Amino acid sequence: MKLAASVLEGDRLALARLLTQVENDSASGRAALNALFPHTGQAHLVGITGAPGTGKSSLVNRLALHFRTLNKRVAIVAVDPSSPFTGGAVLGDRVRMKDLSGDRDVFIRSMASRGALGGLARTTAGIAQVFDAAGYEIILIETVGAGQGEVDIARLAHTTLVVEAPGLGDDIQAIKAGILEIADILVVNKADRPGVENTEKALRSVLELAHPTESERAHHGEPMRMHGAAAAPGAHNWIVPIQRTRSLDGQGISELADHIFRHHKFLHESKQWVRRNETRLTAEVASILQHMLVLAFQSKLPEGRYNDVMRQVFARRLSPGEAVESLLDGTLGERTGAEGGGSQ
Amino acid sequence: MKLAASVLEGDRLALARLLTQVENDSASGRAALNALFPHTGQAHLVGITGAPGTGKSSLVNRLALHFRTLNKRVAIVAVDPSSPFTGGAVLGDRVRMKDLSGDRDVFIRSMASRGALGGLARTTAGIAQVFDAAGYEIILIETVGAGQGEVDIARLAHTTLVVEAPGLGDDIQAIKAGILEIADILVVNKADRPGVENTEKALRSVLELAHPTESERAHHGEPMRMHGAAAAPGAHNWIVPIQRTRSLDGQGISELADHIFRHHKFLHESKQWVRRNETRLTAEVASILQHMLVLAFQSKLPEGRYNDVMRQVFARRLSPGEAVESLLDGTLGERTGAEGGGSQ
Repeated sequence: MKLAASVLEGDRLALARLLTQVENDSASGRAALNALFPHTGQAHLVGITGAPGTGKSSLVNRLALHFRTLNKRVAIVAVDPSSPFTGGAVLGDRVRMKDLSGDRDVFIRSMASRGALGGLARTTAGIAQVFDAAGYEIILIETVGAGQGEVDIARLAHTTLVVEAPGLGDDIQAIKAGILEIADILVVNKADRPGVENTEKALRSVLELAHPTESERAHHGEPMRMHGAAAAPGAHNWIVPIQRTRSLDGQGISELADHIFRHHKFLHESKQWVRRNETRLTAEVASILQHMLVLAFQSKLPEGRYNDVMRQVFARRLSPGEAVESLLDGTLGERTGAEGGGSQ
Repeated sequence: MKLAASVLEGDRLALARLLTQVENDSASGRAALNALFPHTGQAHLVGITGAPGTGKSSLVNRLALHFRTLNKRVAIVAVDPSSPFTGGAVLGDRVRMKDLSGDRDVFIRSMASRGALGGLARTTAGIAQVFDAAGYEIILIETVGAGQGEVDIARLAHTTLVVEAPGLGDDIQAIKAGILEIADILVVNKADRPGVENTEKALRSVLELAHPTESERAHHGEPMRMHGAAAAPGAHNWIVPIQRTRSLDGQGISELADHIFRHHKFLHESKQWVRRNETRLTAEVASILQHMLVLAFQSKLPEGRYNDVMRQVFARRLSPGEAVESLLDGTLGERTGAEGGGSQ
């Protein structure tokens, strides 16, 4: 508990140590998270996602610098699921050091993991809670890539920025409706490059497909549409803005920050701030629960049982579904009828 | 069981129907998978992954056409985790129709899902098993994007192709060591574009970092290095080739196919074919087990209990970790001591 108290008092060394414990999912890290949890709920979580090559890291740096001029305390969590370097995307950090190091009100944490699916999103949630409790007002969660894992991490955020750049958009797949659907704000970075108009135009057309504007809805006589979890922004008069930026000289950064503040205000006024927090916490509990169920099951399994079953699968005498049935039969003591799979 | 028998007899309609059942994780789909499993193990699973904009789909089309000229039966599984269109990436399919439709020995299946993390990899494994049992000799599993989810899907494969293209590589993050680590074959597609030499050079340098060549190892007096799951290729004299391709006119496709055949042969000779099958099946069993544990737990939870606990989390009276402890206490009947998290 001492570590949690030190973090609440603003001890940076304690903060760094706790972040490592949370990343390692240690018992003391979990205990500290429990102790800190009542102090969370203030920070604005901003997710930044997009394909490689869009210049997300420089953009995040620029944003952090801008927030500092407004005297906001900023944390950056850079998540790189495919990096083999556990503990941090070293290059990215070094680039950042120059501008942001020495500022006590900025904290940068890189996370990389080739660990189990779902584990990274769970850990990122814990890291964000630590920063939140420690009084960081804006937490920028940057994810490299644009796959399902990144989307799940982006969903942790109150406000999600999807970053595009000219020159990547010549493939139908480059503009992913699924990614756009989670966007609260679209950024066209590297806006000095040729093709910026085309990128923006393409984004606008996909956007109108996903979130018809009020006028268009009225025109077609359609009711307000809900788009699952992503529905929220469009549904209560949040029109997803498209902002051009240039990380090189900071062009558009101040406007981008204003969109972020505007979205923060919108979330509170529309009560979606609370709803997004609840969605996030529900997902977090589900993820921890799943993790714990597997651990509890493994501890009850007789020694060697798992390997015995796997040997039969390797010999193709048991299918993977039958193997799981067999493992569950032995430990749960009862067949899970409808889910057994072996019989119709 | 009738459906499984029809699939084994080469009934395309039955095959399509079963694929849908597997995608929906229906009881009859699971039963058919169990029945088909003893007939699997012959197909060569080839994963194709890479960032958006690299032209993967056209490349996969070209490869399939080439394999057809060699009289191989080919299945294509196009996985797009971020697509909102459940049931298929419609555009991609339409493009494909032109060249490959009407050929009875080609089967194309698009999968899209915004479902639970891990679910898509699990389903893809089932889909591949159906094709395998149905006698498709080469199964091309194409994943859009390059995040953790895609890597997990690519790991299903015996042979993994990572596709790059010139013009995307101007960002440090564009060349992802983590993605490269899973590559058995590197493809520089769109090789007619300017910058192809730079892309290839960059790939080669990252590659040498990840898989030092034999001569370099000898030079530095180092032992053979293992790189976790990805170690296999480098470790037994598989030097990851870099192949330039142009989907437009098929340049380099025949050479690429040769690399794939060469890798197939290498896997058998080095016994890694068996090892990769075992790794894949182990992951599949773990994923199904996790899924079933959660379902079994949910069915035993008293009505309303979950919502009660979540309300306390929303009020920040219970942390997510404490919430899970509380849920497990009520149902498992015993504390999972070391994993409880609340106490140090």
